[in-house]
Amino acid sequence: MINIKITIKDVAKRAGVSISTVSRVINDSKPVSDEAKQRVLDAIKETGYRPNQLARGLVLRKSNIIGMIIPDIANPYYAAIVEGAEEIANMYGYTLLLCNTHGELDKEIEYLNLMADKQADGLVFMTGKLKSEHVDWFKNAEIKTCFINLYSRELDIPMVSIDNYNAVTEAINYLISNGHVKIGMLYAPDVDDLLQEERLRAYKEALKNHGHEFDEDVVSECRFSIESGYVKTKELLNNKKVDALLLTNDVAAIGAMKAATEMGYRVPEDISIMGFDDISFSAYYQPSLTSINQPTYDMGAVATRMVIKQIAGEQVEKMILLPHKLVERESTVKMSNNI
Amino acid sequence: MINIKITIKDVAKRAGVSISTVSRVINDSKPVSDEAKQRVLDAIKETGYRPNQLARGLVLRKSNIIGMIIPDIANPYYAAIVEGAEEIANMYGYTLLLCNTHGELDKEIEYLNLMADKQADGLVFMTGKLKSEHVDWFKNAEIKTCFINLYSRELDIPMVSIDNYNAVTEAINYLISNGHVKIGMLYAPDVDDLLQEERLRAYKEALKNHGHEFDEDVVSECRFSIESGYVKTKELLNNKKVDALLLTNDVAAIGAMKAATEMGYRVPEDISIMGFDDISFSAYYQPSLTSINQPTYDMGAVATRMVIKQIAGEQVEKMILLPHKLVERESTVKMSNNI
Repeated sequence: MINIKITIKDVAKRAGVSISTVSRVINDSKPVSDEAKQRVLDAIKETGYRPNQLARGLVLRKSNIIGMIIPDIANPYYAAIVEGAEEIANMYGYTLLLCNTHGELDKEIEYLNLMADKQADGLVFMTGKLKSEHVDWFKNAEIKTCFINLYSRELDIPMVSIDNYNAVTEAINYLISNGHVKIGMLYAPDVDDLLQEERLRAYKEALKNHGHEFDEDVVSECRFSIESGYVKTKELLNNKKVDALLLTNDVAAIGAMKAATEMGYRVPEDISIMGFDDISFSAYYQPSLTSINQPTYDMGAVATRMVIKQIAGEQVEKMILLPHKLVERESTVKMSNNI
Repeated sequence: MINIKITIKDVAKRAGVSISTVSRVINDSKPVSDEAKQRVLDAIKETGYRPNQLARGLVLRKSNIIGMIIPDIANPYYAAIVEGAEEIANMYGYTLLLCNTHGELDKEIEYLNLMADKQADGLVFMTGKLKSEHVDWFKNAEIKTCFINLYSRELDIPMVSIDNYNAVTEAINYLISNGHVKIGMLYAPDVDDLLQEERLRAYKEALKNHGHEFDEDVVSECRFSIESGYVKTKELLNNKKVDALLLTNDVAAIGAMKAATEMGYRVPEDISIMGFDDISFSAYYQPSLTSINQPTYDMGAVATRMVIKQIAGEQVEKMILLPHKLVERESTVKMSNNI
């Protein structure tokens, strides 16, 4: 319970010491006798006094806040990453403040400034794609940061991700091994260049390695939303026939399954659909969704640990790639007739 | 872009004025000549100086922050409420900081204290059920607050919700009008007493009004998660046969549909399943989910508007109940043979 009407004066009066003695105890700044210290601590307890953290922030330059800036809390992928971040932050005595940006640059910069102003001790930052404005901001800021799924050659900021090249390679190899020849891909346009390039390259090279041709008509952009997956899948299937479709995120894949079903395709008999992320809904969808599991909890936890390490002045790795895994469910099937 | 190395001294020097003049301009505290003011503003622009908001908070007692404390960002229901809150907050020049509590009392109190410490101007607060610790906290706090789905007779804090009694009455009447006799309900245990009491009472009275008997074996508690909906539905259906099932939230209803399907029931032919909330996933599930639509965006927007009104010293209503509506989809069906 907090009683914000009680001031440091009340504590000093009850403890029978000066205000500066109370201040020394609170800020652990200068030596105070054990006896006086105990009287102050007792008085703080009895009055329910809480030192004004905002004023303390000015003195101590430590807020015990870690900010977490994410594009979309409505996407369970980010919510799962937040969970890991929260647990580690709390374990180390930090409180996590969430900032939801919808990936809009203005909001991102506003939240970055707010975190700097409120003297957050650290920051976990996610966005679709790093822009020059982000890079400029981080170049000038002194806040300890870790990126998730973002990589910048210009900044000395560590990042956590998965090996996107290998993950997409596995997904395409899996679909090919199931007998699929015409494999489409709907991928998010607004993600980190390196990730994007890796995912597209993995797709093309996996096809090539199996003697399949690359057809740009079955590869298209698609945002991280059910609606986008639904609309883009209808467009793609109206234009070309594919026997398998990979979407680089699960929410879009759920929209894709709905679209395919509405168009008269049976999933997986007529078309295999595969997602990426493995959000909790995917196991419960009908049919349940085959997906690449990203270790979302660990990604949030490791990124936050790296922020805390930096705050403590410890060295951290420049890049940590965590293990993914392919989770096979009902939305994909082996085409025995097709091989 | 922010350059936190630039201080008020640099601005004063460039503008050729004293530090206190710069401070007066920034805080709009005492009159400054137009000419000096312009020089200061130009210098701020040229140096990229940003006044330390934390220090300003001490002077102005205004942070332009509204805190939003919610139980579970992984539930799209809350994410949708946040969206409305964000839009209104931004429209009025406030920044929304999100705090995710998992409904744990310790975390809730920690975030409440943090918001008070950081001198948030206002607060939108959600939790399952108000506890005496919450009430004690709010009795002592001076932060402008609006509750969503929470009602306290002891506190003079406004709340936004829907009319839960009428919403459940409509849902049960709808299922009865479809020819269902044995109607189960899985309801969340940990919600506000008033809401809970209203929902249960509505269920019982709707059955009674149609001459149906209340059977406590087909009413059970179920948390706000897919997993809980899945497990509790299996328990209920293993124990008793029902021809319709209402769950008081959509994520649980999605788990229920999966459970029923796995047990060999066809949804809706063998059992009608109905949710409550109308999250975005519900329209895309197969079968798509009949649900009570809660105006989530509006709930967040109106609650935030009420916080901002209070900050401005305006009078606000004690309680606002927003309109819900029944959205009929594929998971429920008329039992023509059964009437």
